[in-house]
Amino acid sequence: MNEINRPLASLDYIPADIKLAQDYEALARRFISLPNYEYIAGGSGRDQTLFANVAAFSRRMVYPRILRDVSAGNTHLTLLNKNFPHPIFLAPVAYQKLAHPLGELETARAADVMQSCMVSSTLSTYSLENIASSSSGEKWFQLYFQPKPEFTLDLIKRAELAGYSAIVVTVDASIRTPGLGALRAQFQMPNDCIAVNVAQYEHAQELLVGQSRIFQGVMRDAPTWVHLEQLLMQTHLPVIVKGILHPADALTIKNMGCAGVIVSNHGGRSLDGAPASLDCLAQIRTTVGDDYPVLFDGGIRSGLDIFKAIALGADAVLIGRLQLYALSIAGALGVAHILKLLREELELCMAQAGCSTLKDIRKADILNATHY
Amino acid sequence: MNEINRPLASLDYIPADIKLAQDYEALARRFISLPNYEYIAGGSGRDQTLFANVAAFSRRMVYPRILRDVSAGNTHLTLLNKNFPHPIFLAPVAYQKLAHPLGELETARAADVMQSCMVSSTLSTYSLENIASSSSGEKWFQLYFQPKPEFTLDLIKRAELAGYSAIVVTVDASIRTPGLGALRAQFQMPNDCIAVNVAQYEHAQELLVGQSRIFQGVMRDAPTWVHLEQLLMQTHLPVIVKGILHPADALTIKNMGCAGVIVSNHGGRSLDGAPASLDCLAQIRTTVGDDYPVLFDGGIRSGLDIFKAIALGADAVLIGRLQLYALSIAGALGVAHILKLLREELELCMAQAGCSTLKDIRKADILNATHY
Amino acid sequence: MNEINRPLASLDYIPADIKLAQDYEALARRFISLPNYEYIAGGSGRDQTLFANVAAFSRRMVYPRILRDVSAGNTHLTLLNKNFPHPIFLAPVAYQKLAHPLGELETARAADVMQSCMVSSTLSTYSLENIASSSSGEKWFQLYFQPKPEFTLDLIKRAELAGYSAIVVTVDASIRTPGLGALRAQFQMPNDCIAVNVAQYEHAQELLVGQSRIFQGVMRDAPTWVHLEQLLMQTHLPVIVKGILHPADALTIKNMGCAGVIVSNHGGRSLDGAPASLDCLAQIRTTVGDDYPVLFDGGIRSGLDIFKAIALGADAVLIGRLQLYALSIAGALGVAHILKLLREELELCMAQAGCSTLKDIRKADILNATHY
Amino acid sequence: MNEINRPLASLDYIPADIKLAQDYEALARRFISLPNYEYIAGGSGRDQTLFANVAAFSRRMVYPRILRDVSAGNTHLTLLNKNFPHPIFLAPVAYQKLAHPLGELETARAADVMQSCMVSSTLSTYSLENIASSSSGEKWFQLYFQPKPEFTLDLIKRAELAGYSAIVVTVDASIRTPGLGALRAQFQMPNDCIAVNVAQYEHAQELLVGQSRIFQGVMRDAPTWVHLEQLLMQTHLPVIVKGILHPADALTIKNMGCAGVIVSNHGGRSLDGAPASLDCLAQIRTTVGDDYPVLFDGGIRSGLDIFKAIALGADAVLIGRLQLYALSIAGALGVAHILKLLREELELCMAQAGCSTLKDIRKADILNATHY
Repeated sequence: MNEINRPLASLDYIPADIKLAQDYEALARRFISLPNYEYIAGGSGRDQTLFANVAAFSRRMVYPRILRDVSAGNTHLTLLNKNFPHPIFLAPVAYQKLAHPLGELETARAADVMQSCMVSSTLSTYSLENIASSSSGEKWFQLYFQPKPEFTLDLIKRAELAGYSAIVVTVDASIRTPGLGALRAQFQMPNDCIAVNVAQYEHAQELLVGQSRIFQGVMRDAPTWVHLEQLLMQTHLPVIVKGILHPADALTIKNMGCAGVIVSNHGGRSLDGAPASLDCLAQIRTTVGDDYPVLFDGGIRSGLDIFKAIALGADAVLIGRLQLYALSIAGALGVAHILKLLREELELCMAQAGCSTLKDIRKADILNATHY
Repeated sequence: MNEINRPLASLDYIPADIKLAQDYEALARRFISLPNYEYIAGGSGRDQTLFANVAAFSRRMVYPRILRDVSAGNTHLTLLNKNFPHPIFLAPVAYQKLAHPLGELETARAADVMQSCMVSSTLSTYSLENIASSSSGEKWFQLYFQPKPEFTLDLIKRAELAGYSAIVVTVDASIRTPGLGALRAQFQMPNDCIAVNVAQYEHAQELLVGQSRIFQGVMRDAPTWVHLEQLLMQTHLPVIVKGILHPADALTIKNMGCAGVIVSNHGGRSLDGAPASLDCLAQIRTTVGDDYPVLFDGGIRSGLDIFKAIALGADAVLIGRLQLYALSIAGALGVAHILKLLREELELCMAQAGCSTLKDIRKADILNATHY
Repeated sequence: MNEINRPLASLDYIPADIKLAQDYEALARRFISLPNYEYIAGGSGRDQTLFANVAAFSRRMVYPRILRDVSAGNTHLTLLNKNFPHPIFLAPVAYQKLAHPLGELETARAADVMQSCMVSSTLSTYSLENIASSSSGEKWFQLYFQPKPEFTLDLIKRAELAGYSAIVVTVDASIRTPGLGALRAQFQMPNDCIAVNVAQYEHAQELLVGQSRIFQGVMRDAPTWVHLEQLLMQTHLPVIVKGILHPADALTIKNMGCAGVIVSNHGGRSLDGAPASLDCLAQIRTTVGDDYPVLFDGGIRSGLDIFKAIALGADAVLIGRLQLYALSIAGALGVAHILKLLREELELCMAQAGCSTLKDIRKADILNATHY
Repeated sequence: MNEINRPLASLDYIPADIKLAQDYEALARRFISLPNYEYIAGGSGRDQTLFANVAAFSRRMVYPRILRDVSAGNTHLTLLNKNFPHPIFLAPVAYQKLAHPLGELETARAADVMQSCMVSSTLSTYSLENIASSSSGEKWFQLYFQPKPEFTLDLIKRAELAGYSAIVVTVDASIRTPGLGALRAQFQMPNDCIAVNVAQYEHAQELLVGQSRIFQGVMRDAPTWVHLEQLLMQTHLPVIVKGILHPADALTIKNMGCAGVIVSNHGGRSLDGAPASLDCLAQIRTTVGDDYPVLFDGGIRSGLDIFKAIALGADAVLIGRLQLYALSIAGALGVAHILKLLREELELCMAQAGCSTLKDIRKADILNATHY
C-alpha cells in the first residue's frame, strides 16, 4: 500500500489500492480517527466473539464443481415477496456520521443505486424520514424497543409512514459491554453524532439501594416476549427479529408469526463470548425449515464468505463494518462500490462452484476443514 | 495504559485504567516486585497447567438467549445452608503480605463488605484469629494437614473457636514444584512473610541413605484417606475437600460424608501437567449428582468465566490470583472492587444469556468450540 | 544461505545450497524479479487454498516399516499402457519464459533426460510443435477449451500431429482471481511472454447492459459437459481431466469414458477457498475404484509428499511451482536436478517405509495426526 | 540465564542455572560448537518428526490423584530378570566425543553410579571393551548389522565377551537423511571421532549404471527379517529390537522370540515425517500384551514425560539428547545429575498422581487434551 495519510474525511473516489472488498477494511484506518476507528472496528469486551466470527469462515472450504453451464446465472432473490437482484443487504449500523459527514444519507443513496436493501437504524444520525427520502429502493427500519411503550409505537408509525417495508427488531443489545480498544482510545461519541430519531424521548432510571445495576437497572425495561407480541399487533409490516443464535429462540419466533430471523451476534458487539454467528447458522436453518426467511450477519468480509453463509442456510446476508469502512473512504460511491465488489466476488465463487442461483448454493457441499 | 511506575505499596485507590476485572492482572506487574510477581503469577514447573486453565475457558462459548424477563434476576446462592448474595468466593491464598503490608486483614475487610466468603489459608501471614476478627461475614478455614496430628487438631479447634464455619482441606499440595519464573527471578520468601499459624509447630525430617527425597521424604507425612476420616470425626464443621480433578476421587469424598469438593489444580501450582480444572468439571458434576456442593477454581479472569464454570457444574467459584492482584494495587478497596466488577460481569452475562438465577445458568448450553 | 544476489537469468549450474528439492523454493526468490515471483509463487485471492495445500501434507505422517528387503525396489509406473521410470510428472505451467528465456524448451529437455512426462500448456511461450521437437520422451498436451470450437479442434489436431500422446483438459480455470501479492507487486505479463499457440485465435466479448461480468461475461463461453463429450469424439488420444476435487465429478468423468482425472485445485490459483487437493484425494480414489488413473497436484514440495499422495490414492503426481523455481535457477539442468532429487527423496522414504514399489505405497498406513 | 560464554569443554561441575532436567537442553548450546550442536540437536530433513516427538507429550495431561499413601513408593523395575532402581536408561548415542573428550567412558561412569542401564552404541568413539570396563553396572550393546555377516558376528561375540547382557539391534537407520541444520552449519565429523568398533571392517559399494543409489545402493546390504533370525541364533543374549513404530512390526518381533522392542523413531533422525513415538506407543502396547517388554524413546525432556510414556505402555525409557547435553556440560557428573533430576521429577509426578510403583502408573488415566 502506498497511500499517504489523508485528512479524516471522505475522498469520494475509489483508491487504486482497492482490489477486493476486504481491502476497504485495511484502508479505513487512515480515513477514520483512532478513537472512532476503535469504536467501529472493535467488539465488546476482549473481542472474543469478534474474532470467532471471522475464524468460523476460515475453517470452511468451498468445493469447486466443474463444467456446469452457469451462463444464465444470477444472484436474484425473492424475500418477503420482494425481488432483489442480489442478497447483500446493508446492516443497521448506528451513528454513521462517525464515518462520513452525510452518514446514513450517503448509505441510502448507495443502497438505491445498487438495489440493496438498507436497514436503517433507530440510532441513525439523520432522521428516519430524511433517510427514507434519500432512497427510492427497498428499505427496512431497525427498531430498538424504547423504555416507554408509546415511544416504541411512535417509531413504528413513523417508519410505516416514511415507507419502510419491514421492521427489523433487534433483541440482543439490551446491554452493550464497552469494547476495550475504544475505552483505551478514550472514544467519546462526538457532539454532532446524535440519535435524532429518539433524542426527544426522555427517559430516566433510578436504582434502589441493593438493586443490581444490571438486573434492576438496564434490564428493568428490556424487551421481553410480551413486547414482541405487542409489536406484531401494532404494525402491519412484516417483523424480522435480529440477534438470534440459539435454535430454540429461532423456532419460538417463527411460531409467533414473525416474518423471519437474522442470525447475528451484533458483530461481536454484544455478549463477548457468544459463539460465531456462522457456527450457529446451520442448526437454526435445520430447525426452522428450508423455507423460513433466515438472514445472517457477522464476519462477512468477501463474496466467498457470502457463499459460505448461504450454503449453510442463509437467504441473504447483511454487512456492517465493511459498509462503514467504505462509507468513510468514499461516501456513497464507496458503499456502492463495495456492494459491487462483493456481488462480483459472490458471482465468481458461484461460477467456480458451479452454482447458477442462490438455491444452487444452498445445495452445495462445504468442507469443514478444522485444521490449517 | 498511562500509569507511571509506582513504589511497591498499595495505592488504596482504584486506577482509572481498570475497566474489567482482568485489568487488575496486567496492572499488578507495576505494583509487585518482580520476584514476588513471578512467585504469585507463575505456576509450577513450566506453567503448562497454568496456561491450560486459561485456554480451557477460551474454547467454550455462551449462547445469548433473547427476550427473557430477567428484571427480577439475582446471583443468590444457598450453600451449606448459608445464603450468599453471589457465588464469587476468595480462594485460600497463602502469604498475602507479599501483595500488601496488611495482607489477609485487608482481604477480610473486603470479603466482609462484599459479602463474599473468604477462605483463610493455613499459611496466612496474620493469625487465623486476627483475620477472623477483621470480618463479620462468612469465612472458612483452609487446612493443611500438619505432619504431627496434634498440630492439625490444634488448628481445627482454633478455627472452630475463631468462628470459621467450614473447613476446606487442601489435598493436592503435598509437594510443590517450584515455578521456573520465580526461580529465575531468585524469589525468596521475605523475612516478614511468616506462616504465623504454624510457625510454632516444629517439624524435622531425616532421610536414611537410599531413601527417596520424595517418597520417604516429603510424602512420608503426607495426608491419606485415613487423615481425612479422622478429620471428619474431629470437627463438627462441614469439611470441603479442595484439589479434586478425577471424578473417582470426588465420588469417594462424597461417599465419605464430606460436605463438598473444590475442583482445582491449585491454580497450576501443584502438578505441572495436570489437566485444566475446567476440563474436569463437567464429568465431576455428572458423577456426584446435581445437588452435591461442587466449587471451582482455576483460570477465572472474568464474569464470563464464572458463567461458564457454573454452566459446567460449579455452585460457586473461588478467585486466587485476581484477589492478590487487586490487593496489591488497592488493598481492601481493590479486592472489594474486583469482586464488584466480577459480579457485574457475571450479571451482564446472565442478562445476555437470559438467565435470572444461578440455577438457570446450570441449564444453559455451552458451545465447545474447539477451534479459533 | 550465503549466495549473493544474482542477475535475473539462469545460472545453468546447481547452487551448492541445494540439498533438498524444496531448497529450490527458497532460492528462487533471488533468481526471479519480484513481480514475476509473486505471480508464480502466489495463489488467487488471499492464498487460503495455497496454504491449505501445504498444510494438508504436514498433518499426515508416514509409518516406517522395518527389515523388509527393498533391494529390488523401484519407482516404476505403468499408466495408460506406457511405462515410466518414476511417477513425477511436470505439470502444465503456463508462460515459462517468466522463469527462463528458453522457457518450455528447457523444461522439455529436462523431461527427456529424466524420462518424466511433460504436460505442455496451451499457454506456453514456445509453440507446442517447438516444444514437442525438444523432447523424444512422453509428452501430453494440456488443453484449454477455446471460445470458438474450431480453435479448440485446431489445437487438438496440432497436438496429435506433433506427437503428444494424451490430452489433459483443464476444467477449473474458467475464471482466475488475481493473487493479491502479484497485484500489489504490480505484475504485468512481459511483452515477450506470449501464448503463441493461441495468439492467432481472435476473440471478443461484449456485455449487454445489466449482464453480469461473470455469468454472462467470462462464463458465457466456459466449457460444459457438452464440450467434454465433443472432445472425446474429436480425438483418438486418451483424455485426462484436470481440476477435480469433488468425488461426484470424478465419477461422472470416469463414466463418460475419460482416461483419468487429475485431482487439483490449480495450485491454489483458481477458487481461493477451495479445499486442499490432498484432503480430497482419498475420497476420490475410493469413489472411482483402485484401477482408474488418478493423478495429483497441489502442495508437493518433497519426495515425502509424493509418498503421501500415492499412499492416499494417486498413481502419479505433477509438480508445478518447483518446476518453475528450478527452471529459473538452472534451466534444463535445474529441472532435471529437481526431478532427480524428488525421485531420490521418494526412494528414501519408500526404503524407510519398507515399500519396494508404488503398489506397496498404496497399501501403506498414513497417520492423520491432526495436532502438533 | 547469566552464564557467560565458556570454552568448548566440559566444566565438570553443575551450573547453578540447572533447576530441571530440561535446563541442560538450553544450556548445552554454550558448551558445544555450533556445527556439533546442530548435528546433535537436529533431526533429519526438516525436523518434522523431531518436533512431533515433543508436541505429542504436550497434548497429554496427567490426573493428580489424592490422599493415597505413597510413602513406600519407589521406581523399581524388573526387566529381563534384572532389577533396576529406576526406569531411565541411556540410549545408544553414537560419537560421544562430540560432546566430551572422554565421551562414552564418562557416560559409563555415570550409568554405574546411578544404576542406570547404558546402551553402548556400535558407533562409539571408545571401544566397546573399554566402555564395558568403565562400568560395573548393567550394560547392553547396541548393534548395527554390518554389511559383511562375519563382522556382525564378530561384534556380537565381542559384546558377549565384554560382559554386555543384552543386544539392542537397531533396525530403523539403514538410511539417514542429513539434518538441514547440520548441513547449513557445515558439520563434519571431527577427525578424532572415529567409530573404533567397526573401523577395521572394510566395506565398499559399487552401483551399476541405472541402479538406484537408494534401493540398489545403501539398501542392498540393509538388514532384513532373515538377518534378525540369524542374530537370534548367533547369541545367547536377549535381543531387543529398536526402532519400531508400527504395531504389526512389534507383533512379528515378539512372535520371533525377541526379548523386547524399543518404540522409537531414532529421535527424529531417521525418516523425517514419521509419527511421534508417543503417538505409536499405546497401540503397540495393546498389540503385544501387558507383559512383553516395551521400551520407549523420543521426545522425553522431563520426569513428567517419563510418567506419560509409562502410562501409555512403556516399561522403561531411554534418553538420548539429554544425555549428550549433560555430558557436554559436566561430563560424568552431568549425566549422573540429569539422571537424578529425571528420577526425582518422575517420583514427584508419581507422588502427585498417587502412584507408588511403575505398575500404578500403567493404570493411570491420561487426558488427551488435543487443544490448547
